[in-house]
Amino acid sequence: MYSYPDAVEELMLYLKQLPGIGKRGAERMVFALLEWEKADISALGNAVKNLAEVITACPECGNCSENGELCSICADSRRDSSTLCVVENVPQLLAVERGGSYRGKYLVLGGKLSPLDGENGENLNIDLLLKQAGKPEVKEIILALSSDVEGRATIAYLTELLKDHRVHLSRPAQGLPAGANLSFADGATVAAAFNARVSLD
Amino acid sequence: MYSYPDAVEELMLYLKQLPGIGKRGAERMVFALLEWEKADISALGNAVKNLAEVITACPECGNCSENGELCSICADSRRDSSTLCVVENVPQLLAVERGGSYRGKYLVLGGKLSPLDGENGENLNIDLLLKQAGKPEVKEIILALSSDVEGRATIAYLTELLKDHRVHLSRPAQGLPAGANLSFADGATVAAAFNARVSLD
Repeated sequence: MYSYPDAVEELMLYLKQLPGIGKRGAERMVFALLEWEKADISALGNAVKNLAEVITACPECGNCSENGELCSICADSRRDSSTLCVVENVPQLLAVERGGSYRGKYLVLGGKLSPLDGENGENLNIDLLLKQAGKPEVKEIILALSSDVEGRATIAYLTELLKDHRVHLSRPAQGLPAGANLSFADGATVAAAFNARVSLD
Repeated sequence: MYSYPDAVEELMLYLKQLPGIGKRGAERMVFALLEWEKADISALGNAVKNLAEVITACPECGNCSENGELCSICADSRRDSSTLCVVENVPQLLAVERGGSYRGKYLVLGGKLSPLDGENGENLNIDLLLKQAGKPEVKEIILALSSDVEGRATIAYLTELLKDHRVHLSRPAQGLPAGANLSFADGATVAAAFNARVSLD
């Protein structure tokens, strides 16, 4: 049985591990790449390698950042340090930013509790959250996690964990479609949900 | 407006140029990559760069090959040199191989005639086809192009071009769905179409 040259098969093997990319999708991507200029293919390869070398987690909030530095939000002194918004991942942070109404800081949890998948919180940035929540300037924490089962369980867990802290807890209003993932919501919906957020106290 | 770190934005810009990858798909791919081990991300980057450095067109048939060498089909002395199968691109060659019944050689045309897109044949491997068709051992040429308008026009053009050569011309039987692209057909359909191929003489 004929197969593609090794260089093609090897790249397809890697691409198939990405979400939403199957055998045919990987094949299509590789042969689209082969139509590119050699310099552009190399530039894409370098951009992928650069990702591994440059991107680090922000030490203050867990957002993606470069070379171990603070992310651009934590480094921005105009952001309101009295409010902390807890999101699952970086695309959800960007979804809140698209809303345009939130001017506080973030904490990127890195996922949510999911005991069935073996996620009991060890890999989440819970220590970082407790450290930030303990800062005297923090007055409110918005738990902007998905409204699916795991997200609600995580909100309940964090609410329990933070109940002795002198912070106000809230979650975005149910203007967001129930069960939906925050990163797919449009800016206006996110803004409405943030403006009408509901107290958990 | 907050945006991702430069390394993320740059990679997304490249990925969006691939077929079927939009803004959200590129975002999803980058953040899936960021969950990988650093070594695996680098290995993917190297695999992309390797593609530009290693893959070349086979000088005999236009199939993809490595370092300017003959492709594994042209280098295989057990393949029948009396039959030449003309396909548009490498995925279509692989589709014919999946059929399993064809044991001859190939010519990868590199596309089909499409005057509206400015493709008048200058970029196609027509010189290579004429060179192969002129070899005394070649007895039959199977024109296995897509059965869409451009494919049929290309078959008509090549038939005219090859009419003075002492070769038998054929095309795969219409067992293939009309208007369909060869690379999406299953092996059994391709085998049936090749076995019942129709004479153009």
